[in-house]
Order: sequence, then C-alpha cells, then structure tokens
Amino acid sequence: MSFQNPVFIPGPTNMPEAVRQACYMPTIDHRSPTFGKILHPCLDGVRQVLKSKDAKIFIFPSTGTGGWETALSNTLNKGDKVLAARNGMFSHRWIDMCQRHGLDVHIVETPWGEGVPAGKYEEILKADKNHEIKVVLATHNETATGVKSDIAAVRKALDAAGHPAMLFVDGVSSIASMDFRFDEWGVDIAITGSQKGFMLPAGLAIIGFSSKAIAASANATLPRTFFDIKDMQKGYDANAFPYTPPVGLMNGLKLSLDMLLDEGLENVFARHHRIAEGVRKAVSAWGLELCAASPDLYSDTVSAIRTPEGFNATDIVTHAADKYDVAFGVGLGEVAGKVFRIGHLGSLTDVMTLSGLATAEMCMVDLGLDVKLGSGVAAAQEYYRTNPAAGK
Amino acid sequence: MSFQNPVFIPGPTNMPEAVRQACYMPTIDHRSPTFGKILHPCLDGVRQVLKSKDAKIFIFPSTGTGGWETALSNTLNKGDKVLAARNGMFSHRWIDMCQRHGLDVHIVETPWGEGVPAGKYEEILKADKNHEIKVVLATHNETATGVKSDIAAVRKALDAAGHPAMLFVDGVSSIASMDFRFDEWGVDIAITGSQKGFMLPAGLAIIGFSSKAIAASANATLPRTFFDIKDMQKGYDANAFPYTPPVGLMNGLKLSLDMLLDEGLENVFARHHRIAEGVRKAVSAWGLELCAASPDLYSDTVSAIRTPEGFNATDIVTHAADKYDVAFGVGLGEVAGKVFRIGHLGSLTDVMTLSGLATAEMCMVDLGLDVKLGSGVAAAQEYYRTNPAAGK
Amino acid sequence: MSFQNPVFIPGPTNMPEAVRQACYMPTIDHRSPTFGKILHPCLDGVRQVLKSKDAKIFIFPSTGTGGWETALSNTLNKGDKVLAARNGMFSHRWIDMCQRHGLDVHIVETPWGEGVPAGKYEEILKADKNHEIKVVLATHNETATGVKSDIAAVRKALDAAGHPAMLFVDGVSSIASMDFRFDEWGVDIAITGSQKGFMLPAGLAIIGFSSKAIAASANATLPRTFFDIKDMQKGYDANAFPYTPPVGLMNGLKLSLDMLLDEGLENVFARHHRIAEGVRKAVSAWGLELCAASPDLYSDTVSAIRTPEGFNATDIVTHAADKYDVAFGVGLGEVAGKVFRIGHLGSLTDVMTLSGLATAEMCMVDLGLDVKLGSGVAAAQEYYRTNPAAGK
Amino acid sequence: MSFQNPVFIPGPTNMPEAVRQACYMPTIDHRSPTFGKILHPCLDGVRQVLKSKDAKIFIFPSTGTGGWETALSNTLNKGDKVLAARNGMFSHRWIDMCQRHGLDVHIVETPWGEGVPAGKYEEILKADKNHEIKVVLATHNETATGVKSDIAAVRKALDAAGHPAMLFVDGVSSIASMDFRFDEWGVDIAITGSQKGFMLPAGLAIIGFSSKAIAASANATLPRTFFDIKDMQKGYDANAFPYTPPVGLMNGLKLSLDMLLDEGLENVFARHHRIAEGVRKAVSAWGLELCAASPDLYSDTVSAIRTPEGFNATDIVTHAADKYDVAFGVGLGEVAGKVFRIGHLGSLTDVMTLSGLATAEMCMVDLGLDVKLGSGVAAAQEYYRTNPAAGK
Repeated sequence: MSFQNPVFIPGPTNMPEAVRQACYMPTIDHRSPTFGKILHPCLDGVRQVLKSKDAKIFIFPSTGTGGWETALSNTLNKGDKVLAARNGMFSHRWIDMCQRHGLDVHIVETPWGEGVPAGKYEEILKADKNHEIKVVLATHNETATGVKSDIAAVRKALDAAGHPAMLFVDGVSSIASMDFRFDEWGVDIAITGSQKGFMLPAGLAIIGFSSKAIAASANATLPRTFFDIKDMQKGYDANAFPYTPPVGLMNGLKLSLDMLLDEGLENVFARHHRIAEGVRKAVSAWGLELCAASPDLYSDTVSAIRTPEGFNATDIVTHAADKYDVAFGVGLGEVAGKVFRIGHLGSLTDVMTLSGLATAEMCMVDLGLDVKLGSGVAAAQEYYRTNPAAGK
Repeated sequence: MSFQNPVFIPGPTNMPEAVRQACYMPTIDHRSPTFGKILHPCLDGVRQVLKSKDAKIFIFPSTGTGGWETALSNTLNKGDKVLAARNGMFSHRWIDMCQRHGLDVHIVETPWGEGVPAGKYEEILKADKNHEIKVVLATHNETATGVKSDIAAVRKALDAAGHPAMLFVDGVSSIASMDFRFDEWGVDIAITGSQKGFMLPAGLAIIGFSSKAIAASANATLPRTFFDIKDMQKGYDANAFPYTPPVGLMNGLKLSLDMLLDEGLENVFARHHRIAEGVRKAVSAWGLELCAASPDLYSDTVSAIRTPEGFNATDIVTHAADKYDVAFGVGLGEVAGKVFRIGHLGSLTDVMTLSGLATAEMCMVDLGLDVKLGSGVAAAQEYYRTNPAAGK
Repeated sequence: MSFQNPVFIPGPTNMPEAVRQACYMPTIDHRSPTFGKILHPCLDGVRQVLKSKDAKIFIFPSTGTGGWETALSNTLNKGDKVLAARNGMFSHRWIDMCQRHGLDVHIVETPWGEGVPAGKYEEILKADKNHEIKVVLATHNETATGVKSDIAAVRKALDAAGHPAMLFVDGVSSIASMDFRFDEWGVDIAITGSQKGFMLPAGLAIIGFSSKAIAASANATLPRTFFDIKDMQKGYDANAFPYTPPVGLMNGLKLSLDMLLDEGLENVFARHHRIAEGVRKAVSAWGLELCAASPDLYSDTVSAIRTPEGFNATDIVTHAADKYDVAFGVGLGEVAGKVFRIGHLGSLTDVMTLSGLATAEMCMVDLGLDVKLGSGVAAAQEYYRTNPAAGK
Repeated sequence: MSFQNPVFIPGPTNMPEAVRQACYMPTIDHRSPTFGKILHPCLDGVRQVLKSKDAKIFIFPSTGTGGWETALSNTLNKGDKVLAARNGMFSHRWIDMCQRHGLDVHIVETPWGEGVPAGKYEEILKADKNHEIKVVLATHNETATGVKSDIAAVRKALDAAGHPAMLFVDGVSSIASMDFRFDEWGVDIAITGSQKGFMLPAGLAIIGFSSKAIAASANATLPRTFFDIKDMQKGYDANAFPYTPPVGLMNGLKLSLDMLLDEGLENVFARHHRIAEGVRKAVSAWGLELCAASPDLYSDTVSAIRTPEGFNATDIVTHAADKYDVAFGVGLGEVAGKVFRIGHLGSLTDVMTLSGLATAEMCMVDLGLDVKLGSGVAAAQEYYRTNPAAGK
C-alpha cells in the first residue's frame, strides 16, 4: 500500500496528522471520568456544527447507515408513512431501509442530478389531510450525483402545508463541510458520519434529535437495542456508553471539532466552496459537464462529472488507481459508467486538488478522451491564485 | 490524561504498539482491491481463531452488543422462543435485547458466580417436545463475574435432548484469549468484539455463522438493515462493505490475527492462563475469594474478587483511579459493590500484572482492609518465576 | 521486540505518548519561519530548566558526549590545564576526551561511590597561584554509580581560592530531573542530552554557556566545525541551524519543556525524589546497599545497587532481559559486576516502579540471592502509599 | 503547522508512513542484543547501497556536516594538503571546514553550475610529484546548483596521475537516490545523511571508509572523540555505540534500507530519474533554464532553476510558502536570488510532483513572470503518462 498521494474520494477524506494522532491514543478506562472529558465536548461541538441550540446529539460506533437506522427505529412504528425523494444512490438506500423496516414510503422519483423536489413535497403534504405522513426524508447532499438540495425549501413546503410531519435530513456528506442549519430549517433528525467533514476514519454515526423527535421516541415500537437513544442518553448521563465506546475515534472527533470551530464554520464552508469552485473550473475547461443539473445544485464536497456518451467513466477510476495510485469515485446506480466523481472535502488544499485534476487529465488523455493536458489545471490555477485561501 | 500505567479493565485491553500503528493508517479507497487485501485475511483469520472450517465470518463497525443484535435479527422472527441463563450482567443484557425485539425468552435464573446450567438446559430442551425453542443462548465468559461456562456441555445437552435449536454463544471476552471450538461444540453463532483478545480499540463486532444459522436467515423477518448479513456478504464478495468500512481497525485486526496465529492459539491460551493463575495466587494470598464459585469456572481473562461483607468494593476502583492512575473494573448489577475486577487479557506481561497487583494491595491497605502489602505480589512472583513464560 | 514492559535503564527513559507523537512529525522546511517557532521556545525553555537568566543555549544533533566536546573545543587551547575528579565511568570518559584533545588534566582520583571532592579541589586551586587551570570539570550526577555531587560546594571551592577558572558541569543525568542552578552555582557550561529528564529519544546535545564561556570561545583554537557555537548562534539568529536540524526531536523537546514547566520544576524534582526514595526503601528491605557512599550522595535518577561479594551483578541484568523482558543497567568500569542499576527518571510512576522492583526481586531469587519475594515491593508500597504523588 | 502539502526542498524529503512509524518506536535498552539486530542490518544495508563489498560503515548521531568532519579528523594531520573544487555552497563549506581544521586546501575555483573539473584535478595531481596532496575531495551532487559530478572521471584523474591520494566523496544528496559506486570508483570515504535518499528525519551521518582510509586513521592526529571511528567500531563489535545511539532513527534506517533494496537500487535510480525528467520538461516549457550547465550535469535529486535577470528568485520560495504552504529551496551563496530549487528526491510520486510544478507556476504568474499556467504541468504530464512508473 502506498499512502503517498492524496485521495479524491468523497469520503473518507484525507486526515490531518493531528487528528490521526488523537485517534491513535492508548487505552483508557471508558467508565472513568476521563472519558466524560472526551464525550461531552464532542456532544457540544457537534451541536454547534449543526447550528442548533439544544438538539440532543447521539454518537454511535457505526456509520451513516447506522445513523439512518437510529433515526427510523427510534421514532416510528411499523406501517408508518414516510415521504421521500429518490434522486441518487444514497436516497435510494435510505428508502430501501424504510421498506425493510416495514414503513410505507411515498417515493417521489426524481431525476438523478436534480435535488429534493420541494414543490412536489408541498403538493403531497397538502393532500395528506389526515397527516398520515409521519416523516419527510431529505438527502441534503447526494454523494452519488454531487447534488445539494435546498432543505430550507423543504421546511417551507412543510410549513406551507401546515403539516406536522418530522423532517429527517441525511447530512452525511454535507455536515461540517457545507452550511447546515438544524434549528433554522426546523430539522428533526440530522445524520452524519465521522469520515467526511470531520476528517476522521469511518466508525461513528453522528446524529442530532430535536425535542419533537425525542418525544416521538417514547411511542416508537420498531425494535432496537444497539441504536436505542434512551440507553445511549442514560449512558451519557453517567459519562459512559451502554457498551464499550470507540474512545480513540471520539478523541479524534473532539480535536476535529476544536479545529473546525477555531477556524470558524463560515470559513470552513468558504474553504470547501473555494476548493470546489476550482474543480468546477477545470471540469468546464475540459468541456465536460457535472451531473448536477444546475449551478444552485452544485455540491461543495463532491463533483460527479459526466463523460461523453459511449465512454465508460468507471475506466477513469480504475486507470487512475492502477497507473497513478490515485483514488477517485465511480458512478453508482443509475449513473454508473456515466460519471466519475472527485471528492473535494475534508483535509484538502488547492495544491493537493491540482494534483488530482492533473491526474484526471492524464487518465482522460490516456483513455482517448479529447481533453488537453494542463487545461483543467490551468483553469483551476487561475481561480485559486486570484481567489486565495483565507488569510493568504 | 496520563497513559503511563497499564490498564487492568477486562477490555479494552492494553494494545501492542504495532497493532496501534496498523490501525493508524492513512485513508485508502475502501472500494479498491487494496481493501480486499485487508478484508479477506481478516475473515480467514477470525475463522481460524474460532477453530472453524467454514463458518461465515461477519465484521460490523459496531461492538459486541451489535454482534448480539446481528445474531438475533438475522435468524429469528417475532415471538420466537429462546432459552437463556441469567448469571451475570452480560447474559442479562442479551436477554433484555431478546425481549425488546419481541422474542419469548425462557430465562433460567442462575446465581451470579455460577456457569450456564447445562443440566437445566437439558431438562428444558427435553420438555420442549414441539421444538418451539429456536435458539439456546450461552455466555462463554461472563465478564461481570469472571465465570467461564462449559459450552461443550451445553452442546451435549442439546444433543442429549435431540433438540434442533441453534446454539448462539457470546464469546466477547473469551475468543482469542481462551479456547473456543466453533465446529467441535456445534456453535451456530459466535460473537466477539475487537477490544478484548484481539487487542484493538473498540469498534468491531466480529461474528461467525454456521451454515444452519445462514439458512435460518432466509426466513428471519426481524427488521434489520445495518446488521443485515446478506448485504454484508454481498459487499464482501465485491471486496467491500455495504457502507464505509472501518479500514484502519480492520488493518489492525489483520495484524493482530497474524500475531495470534504466529504465536499459536494454544500458546495464546496458555499465556492467558499463566497470567491469570498468578492473579489468582495473589487473591488467595490476600485471603480473598473469587466471585466464580469453583475452580473449573475461573476465567482466564478476568477475575472478579469478592471483598469482605460491609466493604464497598467499588471504592477500590475509584481509589486506584484517583490516587494511582490505575484502572480496575467495578462490580456490575447484582455484584455491584461486592466485587472488583482485574482484567488480565490481551497485551499483558507478568511484570505488568505485578504492578496491578501491587496497586490493588496499596488500595486495599489504604482503605483499611486487612491485607499485607507485598503478600499477593509475592505469591504471584513465586508462581511466575517458577512457571516462566513460553520460551523463557 | 516487545515494548510492553517499562525500561529501568538510566536513560533513555520511558517516553510520554504525547512527546513521542510530537517527535514523529512530518517534514517541514527547516529554513522557514515555522522552524523558528520550534527553535526559540526550545532555547528559552532549556534556559528556564537550567535556572539561568541569560545563558546562551545550544542544541546540537548529537549526544551528551558531543556536548562535552562542544564545551572543550569552543573554549580551550591545546595544552590548557583542566582540573577533574575521576569518580565513575562518565567522569572518566570526559577526562579521556580532554586528553585526546591535547589538554593537560589534573586528575583527582576519587573512590567510585563518592562525589566530586570539593575540598581537594579547593586545595589544588589555591595552590595554582598562576591560574594555569582554565577549567574545572564536575559531573553532577555520576550515572555509573548513582552519585550526586555538590556543585554549590565546587563553586565555593573556586570562590574560596579566588580562582578564575571556568566551571563546566556534566548534568546529563540530572538536568530536568534534579535541581540544577546554573546562575546561582556560577556554572559556565552545563551539558545534558535529550534522552534523560527531557524524556526524548537520544539525538540532542543540549548545552548552556555563560557569558564568560562565550567570551572564552573568541580565543579558543581547538579545531571544531560541527560543534562550533558561533556558526550555531549565527544559524539561530536566522531561525536556522548551520546544517539540517533535527526538527522532530526539537518539536518533541518543545513539548517536553512545556510539560516540565507546566508541572513546575520543583514538582518535577519532588516527583523524581519520591520515586527514588521508594526504590531506596526496597533496596534497604533487600538488605543491600547502594554504591553511593552516603545518603547526601544518593541520586534521584539512578540507583546503583551493590550485590554480595562473589555474585556477578551483571547476571541480574542479563537474566531480567532474558526471562522477564525488563531492562536494568549493568555496572560499568570499576564497578562492573559489583552493582546493577535501576534507572528511575523521566516518565515513570510509582506503579511502574513497583513492577521494576518486583522483577529485580524475582531475578535475585532466581539467581540464588537471599532476598524475600515481595519484601522490597512492600517497603516501596508503604512509602508510596503514605507519601502520595502531588495532588493525590 | 499544516502538513498537508508535500515538501519540495532538496531534503529532508517527504517520509513514507512506514518509515516514520519505524522511527517512532518506544524505548529499548540500547546495550541489549536487541539493538544489535537493528545496528548490523543498517551497516550491511548501507554497504550495499554504496555498492561496496567491504567498506566499513559508520553511523553517527549527527548530520552530513558531521560526516565531513569524521572523514577529515580520522584520517589527516594538521597541515596536510587537500585538493578540492569549489563549485557550490556545499563544496564551499567542506573547504571551509578543512581550513578550520588546519588543512592546506588547494582550491580549484569552478563556476557554480559546473561539475568537479577532473581534467584540472589531473593536471594538479600530476604536478604534485612529492605526493603532498593527501586527499582529493569531490561533491558528487552539489545540492546548491543541482549539479551531478563525474566521480569516475575523478578516479581516472587520480589513476592517470598515478597519485596515491585518497578520494573523499560527499554523496549527501546523491546516495540512495542516484547511482554511487564506492568500489568501482575507488572511493575512500563516502558521506551521506539520513534525510535525503533514505527518507528519514535528519539526525544521522552515514559514512563508508575504504581499508585505505581505515589505515590512515592509525596515524591521524587531528583531535576527535565524538567522531572517532575506532571508538565507534569498538562499540559496534559489542552491538553498541560508544554513547547512546539514536535507536529509533536507526530502526527507521533499517526499514528504509529494506524498502530500497527490495525495490532494487537500479529501480530506485530510475524512479528518481523519471521524476526529475518530468520536472525538467516543465522547466523547459516555462522557457527557463537550469543552473546546471549541461544535461550530463543534471541532478536527479534537485533542480536549481534560473529565473530571468532582474527577478529575485527567492521571492518564489517565500511566496510559495506564504500563499500556498509549499516549500521550495532558495538559491544559496553565489546563486542566491538567481535560482530557486525544486527538490525531487525521496518519497515522491509523479502526482505529487505535478502539484509542486503547478504551485511553482502559480507563484511565477503571481509574481509577474511570463509563464503560462498549466504549461509546465502539461509538459510533465505528457512525459509521465508516456513514461509510466515501473510496473505501471
């Protein structure tokens, strides 16, 4: 295994040295007060990153998928109605999970490359006179298509319909990288993981619950133990977990939160936007298009790039790994073979990004695409040098 | 946080430097063939540690508790009957999980300090003419009481009754430290975690399924997604997970397995027995008794030590942490305040163990117990020096 | 290589996790201002540890031996007279270095186990009417014998004789562990290394020069380049070294200094004294004696323990390494075979120390010495528990 | 400190993760046989890298400068004649060291950008009928100018003159990156450091002595102790150093040697050549020239790039550090302000190199140079993609 080149997958991201070192701590007693000094700053810091005053934060030794399951199983009952849009691989998987847990999902099929259709949601919610829909799902950032959805608009749809359904948002690839407003958007459950904006290894599901969501948990009968938030809360109240916590990862999260909050959330978001914008300049210079249908949908954490008809976009990813030891993301599901993805989140600089763009160019030329070497790099360079990083 | 002294909790254990370093790897693409080179050796190695020829191994980013849930939710249906003994905190929690998932548990209440009552099991199984009991649970090593149960005897009970129930064994604090025979004992599901005998941080649920358990999963309707073994197996077949895997932890597991198998499993078990025996000599020299009711029940990974009537055993643990920066385990549940626990598993030497024993002595004297300084240490020293470690 | 047990050699010491991590930093440009932010805090911090207001501090990528050579070659000329006592291996080696560099050493042969004979020094200095002696050498802590000398007394001898000779002090195994007063004792050059009280790997010679010593360097003609303090000072003035600096080690030193100064020097010294005192209680309980001739000479960083006539003390060291994977120090030079040494400096706790004492006991009993298992441990336990660490 | 971007200084280089981890080992007893298992493979491996059968290898806790001093002080006497060319900062410094140690240096002033003038050397050696010249110095790779000299030609000059002088070669920035033939070229002393081709932190002087050089040490009277090879050899014979060795760094060297020898020296050299060639393509595309006067002099480890008249090349280095957090090397001595340097040795890939070239382009454009963004990158990309790395 060579670890020399940065990775350009949309998570896990490159990790800051200090964060890796924080994760790599020796064993401590996880039932001692020492653990509380790691746990509580994590809970507080995540709450700040979510821009929430009093969301209850839960951290499970799991992944974003476990976060989805935590959300559903703690708040719903078999047969409950859920409204969801399918516009990418990750929204698709969450819907699939709902169905496996016996929920009745009203699926709004949405073209891959478009965002959550707030207008359609509003219609459906208005039509649901009996308020049978218990939860509305929204994927803030579809990692598969590089599409950012407008969660504020979804909230407006709920409000316009005067509908009491809860709003659950998958922020796995947005939270801690792109603006997320738990309180302002009236989010009831937000879900993320450790391996994206928090720049940690995978292994933590990180979840925020509104008081409404907490209240719903009192009557929820879907079976759960590992993901039970009541057990977890009882644990936290005693500086503990209901089982052995992933102490090192949480120690890393504590540091990552310190770093993000010291930098300032708006600066973190601006940093991601700047890096992303350079990538988009390159894509444009290559004469290619993003999967995301319009600029307002462009994600600042991942770009899914459409390749010409008849070309297998996955070849770029395989070739980059084989010949250059560089990792990009393949297209998934409906866009498999049609797009390749450049992840540009977490611990990444303009300079590192340029090496990813240069590699993509070499791959495309190697594979016969009509792209000029240096062209995308030059476009990104021009953007980066004239829009320097904060403080530079 | 001082990391100078070893920990003496029954997991997470002290970690070998090399294993920690292996966990601490930079980010790789978890969808690349590189990950397969970590994944498959882990699955193969765990199978060997279980002494199984063809158990299907599953590793989830979770903990032993998640392993329990994996076992139940992949094989059972609501209302299914389960036979279980409650003889400590961990068997208690597994039973509680069964009940929360709507299973009907026949509980055999068993004194804390005794093992799984194979005789009682046999009676009950014989009486279950219609074979309504689908699963028999057994906790191989009760971490709360330091009691090792006889799993071969449980198998014999099933066989004597001619009962087709599956046998699920919690081996969280035994597997990779004490002898475990998946095939010979006819185990259907075995569950462990990363943070005990594997000497890793917490974060992995490690589970083996027999073909019978796999077959049962076809008809199991308890809801599950995160812990679904079919999704997981499909992932493995493509060198992947159904979600982001905990790459670094698995890289550590790969090394840990290499180390254990290179040492030889019987040597690993002998090493644990030797360390444990020294601890027991010390306990005896202190004039104290183990919670475990008889020598055949003594665990080689953790000793729960009864303190005199009227003394709060938890004070020893608090005092050791406060005054000496040493971590022991408290008593849990029914034995809270009655025992304190010394964990002696994983990466531990005789020399390290002596420092734990010396600390326990200082604490007991500080707290007014009638124990002679150096007495337990001397007993353990005599045992260790006359029974040297393998190759010494 | 097993790294499980602590080491009990008189340096390199056990290292704090955080210090090791600080050393283990990625490459930076050592000609950038970033390096200055490591360098200058190191120089300032060392000066504080020396208890000096304005000593010039020099750090070379070398060891204490290089520090000795820095002292001599930057201040002296061929044929210059030097006064030195030989009372152990390290004073012997420094004398040997003087001779190799063409200096004329007046050697005061002193029994190994005694300290620098300040009275003899005074006589000799008084007799040196022409002030031909340019430098007086003193080894503050003889690592070979565990003897601490009285440097204040040496200063008094110089003053009583009204002699202008410079005072060079080897503080390799005392500085940062035992009280050292550069200004108050009128030290002209103090020498130490990274691998003792600073708890770092070997690799740094750390040296303080008084203004008198700096002045002497103007006329010193002994050849030197690597160890030239003028080149080094010129480098420092530009945030650099005259050659590539050991950046990681210095980053570790910066953290180590922060830790020592945050703890408070007097607390650091008290901590070392406490640990040492426990070791001495154990030695006494074993019925053995220290090499150091009297209590005022006892070193708080290393104890050299005499074994009975006819017994080869080195066997203890070999046996401990072979059978128990524990490192003690052998006797050197005149006391080879007569003593074994327990290092008790740097990152060490009472609990760790007890494991060293327990190991020494097992070795002595294994090798037939008349020592009772647990006896020394009990004596140290009693001392440690009744004299708790600061804040405990 | 951000460690995200690679460094492009001509050493210390970027470090492989595994090598850093090897350096970062806990304390062991450096007087134990364990240390011998690190030491001897280091000595053997260095000998192989030097392409020598029986050179005596010495490793000091020091730097290349200490290596120079080791060479001189162990083999020469005050007043001895030395022949040397001054063609860059590092040859200049070695000459300066000779003079400080009282040697009589015949300096051949050579334009910076040219190599060691073997023809001139031959003339001078022929003229030295009495063989007063004891040593001929040659800098294999002038790090300041990016000039590789022809050491075989220097050997031929000595042979053609029938001159018995010893040949000392500074291979600090060539050895382990570029072909070096100790035996074939009749080198008597070769000097390097840990922080270049060996990809380690600074802190080791690594030196090879021929039997002739060893013989010379018997009569050499320049004072030395720290750098004395006799003491060092005596130490090695007992698996030790004459003082505390830098154990971790040597453990890293052991791994680095394994990696280099496993890869194969010719492959290592080819790898460096390929990376360097891409850099040179970029320089050419920028319309700039190297400091090295002709292609046969081009160094495969560092390129010194001349900037246009009137432009301060150092600004590029400062600007890159300030705005992009990327480290290049400044011009030194005679070429200060006239060149900037890109180091391309050690742990580096084509992809990483492209990010350095992209950064240099942005800096040059930012600072007003007439360079086209992407131009150098494109030239290097074309070279790298059509000349793939070995096995790709």
